[in-house]
Amino acid sequence: VSRAWFLARAPQGRLRADDFELRDVDLPPVAENEVRCELLWLSIDAANRAWMQGATYRSAVTAGTPMPGLGLGRVVESRSPSHPVGTIVAGDLGWREQCVVEADDLEVVRGTRPLPEHLGVLGVSGLTAYFGLLRIGDPQPGETVVVSAAAGATGSLVGQMARIRGCRVVGLCGSPAKQRWLEDRLGYDVALDHRSDTLAADLKAACPDGVDVYFDNVGGPVLEGVLPRMRVGGRIVCCGVISQYDTDSPRPGPAGVPGLIVTRRLTMRGFIYTDFQAEFDAAQTEIAGWLDDGSLQVAQHVAEGLDRAPDALVDLLAGATRGKCLVRIAPETVVAHAG
Amino acid sequence: VSRAWFLARAPQGRLRADDFELRDVDLPPVAENEVRCELLWLSIDAANRAWMQGATYRSAVTAGTPMPGLGLGRVVESRSPSHPVGTIVAGDLGWREQCVVEADDLEVVRGTRPLPEHLGVLGVSGLTAYFGLLRIGDPQPGETVVVSAAAGATGSLVGQMARIRGCRVVGLCGSPAKQRWLEDRLGYDVALDHRSDTLAADLKAACPDGVDVYFDNVGGPVLEGVLPRMRVGGRIVCCGVISQYDTDSPRPGPAGVPGLIVTRRLTMRGFIYTDFQAEFDAAQTEIAGWLDDGSLQVAQHVAEGLDRAPDALVDLLAGATRGKCLVRIAPETVVAHAG
Repeated sequence: VSRAWFLARAPQGRLRADDFELRDVDLPPVAENEVRCELLWLSIDAANRAWMQGATYRSAVTAGTPMPGLGLGRVVESRSPSHPVGTIVAGDLGWREQCVVEADDLEVVRGTRPLPEHLGVLGVSGLTAYFGLLRIGDPQPGETVVVSAAAGATGSLVGQMARIRGCRVVGLCGSPAKQRWLEDRLGYDVALDHRSDTLAADLKAACPDGVDVYFDNVGGPVLEGVLPRMRVGGRIVCCGVISQYDTDSPRPGPAGVPGLIVTRRLTMRGFIYTDFQAEFDAAQTEIAGWLDDGSLQVAQHVAEGLDRAPDALVDLLAGATRGKCLVRIAPETVVAHAG
Repeated sequence: VSRAWFLARAPQGRLRADDFELRDVDLPPVAENEVRCELLWLSIDAANRAWMQGATYRSAVTAGTPMPGLGLGRVVESRSPSHPVGTIVAGDLGWREQCVVEADDLEVVRGTRPLPEHLGVLGVSGLTAYFGLLRIGDPQPGETVVVSAAAGATGSLVGQMARIRGCRVVGLCGSPAKQRWLEDRLGYDVALDHRSDTLAADLKAACPDGVDVYFDNVGGPVLEGVLPRMRVGGRIVCCGVISQYDTDSPRPGPAGVPGLIVTRRLTMRGFIYTDFQAEFDAAQTEIAGWLDDGSLQVAQHVAEGLDRAPDALVDLLAGATRGKCLVRIAPETVVAHAG
């Protein structure tokens, strides 16, 4: 028996914590090539809400189904020779205390870095920032990079990586406290409030020569505000559409699409970090180097215990978190690394 | 003295022929490095209307100013050694009988092909189709290519070039007669009516495996209709937004932008054919080969005389033309080629 969160009903408008229901579930016996994992950490991501709107790169999460989600776990029972008991694994483990999964669907976590970094800066958030910025955005030294949801798990890394590449970095975020954090602690050149009535003028002042790369986490009105500031030949990295996730009536696309795409010769390109799976090792090595030499700062927002998972997602969608949002399900200190 | 069309007032809603006014203008004396040209052919393009909405890749055309436009002319007075009297030139000559322009702004037209082809299949329309499809869309043999405004100057060439590249080709156009023409004469696999109430289902039936390349000339609801049919990794060539040109209240962008851009890992990229200026010669050579061997068909809609220029543009915007829309200003037969 394990406790697991289910989506009890389709959210009406904004997601509420009581859209979820915590249930006891019977764990199936472990079959050949499967393992049973104890959950250690759960990654809370804005995309969790998007999954409830319909099929995306994965099937929709509908009412009455267990809530999926990336997590880190420890193998406690194994019928897979390559995943002995004690192995630390990452994958779609779900919002639950224990799970039984196919071993082939799991990534084995190795190394000596703190475990939750494998869900953050060395995992989905860091790899999304790394490949999205460097492969899709292709920023050149001296260029201006704008990133939205700049205080989020991905955005807080994008701006720092752009700075490491020698770019001028402008972040868009949702509160004065986040603005100060981005400018004073993460080295953003300018941080702007995306809710400001003067966003267009603020952007113009912050990017007097225009924007070469816009790393778009939010879509909607912010994308619409940045589009007219794009330089000819600019690149828009389409990473997410957070502004349209927490609703059951998403807006149409922004004005200027595709008009400004044509006249400014822009490229908009979408991606999922797993498109670059073959290059994960090299990316993680480079990112770890930035962590070691202090050029990359990471922030975590940790909710304690599986019971808090729905609140953590609601908080993230409300803009109440900074950096990587995680749920700690079992104490990390009891865990020995596998490699 | 020359007659020239002016935009008399900013169009209210849809463009009307009486938004233009034909005036007598005094020609300035020809200065050093300038030439005086007699206009032979004028290119009528949907973009002419977009210029009236505001600045694009060129400054806006405002009320009270002479109407610009690509044309072919013959030099009748020259103070440029490289452009002697009799030279045939192409450039932004404007909607007029005669003009005085900088010689450096003109392209010298050489060769023995029919003159108006230098505004069509070998000029702006053909080069737009060629570079947009082959460089931005990068279609592979066996892939499915969809093109909108498929019976237009550019679209009628895009589908044929995609067919030459070994693709399955689906065209979207505005009348049953155009559908038959595309299927029976230009070799499109399927032509659909973009105004159909069943467009989504029609597209699904015509593209059962999805769409690899969408060459978008129109934006708006048609782009919105094609987006959900795009395959993962698909490319959207943003060439124009005709559906939103003939209005003073353009719609916001289509639903699914940027949501589907992300989840399908799409690339949307805008371009102007002049971005590829360095490769014009090679492209024109390849296009001329397709004309010579019969694999490329061209259609022209010719309006006779400068007086008909506004009507020609109104007709084009109303979907009443097929292929390249031109105004014949002086008889081609009196013209000797320059090279």
